[in-house]
Amino acid sequence: MAKGCGFEIPVLRVHDGVRSSRPDLLAIEEPLEIRVASGPPEAAIVRPVSVTMRTPGHDAELTAGFLYTEGVIADIADIEAVEPWGPSGAGASNVVVARLRAGLALDWRRLERHFYASSSCGLCGKASIDAVRVCAPPRLAAPAVRISEDTLHSLPDALRASQEVFDATGGLHAAALFTTDGRLIAAREDVGRHNAMDKLIGSRLLAHDDLSRSIALVSGRASFELVQKAAVAGIPVLAAVGAPSSLAAELAAEFDMTLIGFLRDRRFNVYSGAERITPSPETFFSLPQSSH
Amino acid sequence: MAKGCGFEIPVLRVHDGVRSSRPDLLAIEEPLEIRVASGPPEAAIVRPVSVTMRTPGHDAELTAGFLYTEGVIADIADIEAVEPWGPSGAGASNVVVARLRAGLALDWRRLERHFYASSSCGLCGKASIDAVRVCAPPRLAAPAVRISEDTLHSLPDALRASQEVFDATGGLHAAALFTTDGRLIAAREDVGRHNAMDKLIGSRLLAHDDLSRSIALVSGRASFELVQKAAVAGIPVLAAVGAPSSLAAELAAEFDMTLIGFLRDRRFNVYSGAERITPSPETFFSLPQSSH
Repeated sequence: MAKGCGFEIPVLRVHDGVRSSRPDLLAIEEPLEIRVASGPPEAAIVRPVSVTMRTPGHDAELTAGFLYTEGVIADIADIEAVEPWGPSGAGASNVVVARLRAGLALDWRRLERHFYASSSCGLCGKASIDAVRVCAPPRLAAPAVRISEDTLHSLPDALRASQEVFDATGGLHAAALFTTDGRLIAAREDVGRHNAMDKLIGSRLLAHDDLSRSIALVSGRASFELVQKAAVAGIPVLAAVGAPSSLAAELAAEFDMTLIGFLRDRRFNVYSGAERITPSPETFFSLPQSSH
Repeated sequence: MAKGCGFEIPVLRVHDGVRSSRPDLLAIEEPLEIRVASGPPEAAIVRPVSVTMRTPGHDAELTAGFLYTEGVIADIADIEAVEPWGPSGAGASNVVVARLRAGLALDWRRLERHFYASSSCGLCGKASIDAVRVCAPPRLAAPAVRISEDTLHSLPDALRASQEVFDATGGLHAAALFTTDGRLIAAREDVGRHNAMDKLIGSRLLAHDDLSRSIALVSGRASFELVQKAAVAGIPVLAAVGAPSSLAAELAAEFDMTLIGFLRDRRFNVYSGAERITPSPETFFSLPQSSH
């Protein structure tokens, strides 16, 4: 039974030999097919570009974020509308079409995700990084962004507080954006961590927000794909509660992005861009001044 | 610097305002492109079917497991060899080709992953489950598999013990197979959880193991994709340290698979197939019998 963003089913719970039966709320996972329509309205070419397993909701944001961070479009204004596809009915809400602006020259080859990277020089981490460079100009250097250690330490709790509202299932990944002084801008959740990031970035693109001074935090690990999405969106600082991968750290360094891992329990590791992190002011234990 | 399955880079560690600099080991993430070659040797058609970000190693197992659990091949004997593709050199080891046996009729449409599901009746969870049914005959009912609660409780520690050897990075997902009495058969790790599962299943397929009496454990959450892979491989019990999704639970129920979530700290939840789990024998505190 669907219930908000969870699906309730009866489960058998076992704890140290004691069995009980009660309902449990599961994170909803459903397929979403993203199609793009391009060309003149009377003769538009419609093409499927991706099927992803996602938690329903914020599908227009997911579509906008996906098309932008994967380099299919270079400007959010390239999307005229994101609409459900086909006649209404079972499954119809799981297919969306992004109508692109007339006259947009679309590189269909980019839509064959990943494959373009291997065309010339073999497939390797370097080629993957180069492929990102094509659609992510080095925008990260622009404003001088600084964030304090104390602000960083405060982010996981702020993310968890926003998650408690949504996630009673224990099964959702979260991604959030913060200002440099630690104020939550937006948070999104999904069964897929790349989807949570796409929804988050898509929501800000559709609101015409500037992301060049924002800090992103993800609830899990930092993969190449998440660093890619942050880089293309121009987010200068990406922090993860979990570990980064080797290629994630390499990509972040290439783009002068600040990459932080294991951000929890008042600790973190900085893999690149440490100059953006300011030490917390030292604590002095000053004696109360004598009043006479 | 590559070091075993980890990549060592210098990091800045911050703990409560105290900064230190030391090397950290990151899980290696690199792209792998899987191609299949079919048709007569003198005129084989070679086609890329997937690019995945994976931790290098066990690439033949990954390829075999992927092609089997995604329904591209129905029998491991359909693969004659898995080989590196192209001239040796930079990036060459990140492209592999699976040579399929001569005369095998390949459904290229199945290779366009996911898209086949939406062709007729719209895209929904039901259609996704039906798509799995095509390549996963209901094999799970065959042998009567039983596993005790105590054995289940013991699996996470056994998985962690096997992980400690490999994972100094905190960044790898693990998947393992056990016998019904809790003996570890095999474990594999990867930055991608679906890759860890493909490597695990591929290793057993290449060893011509029967999986119909085995228990799979994954270190993270149970998604639709992981349940699909276990179902196609004929694994009757899938346990996860984390939460399952709604569609994972639906798929497991459809295939009479036992699906267990939150297996940790002597607890677990059973979402389907509870009849395969036997209660632990009750503990009686019997008084020592009088000897006279």
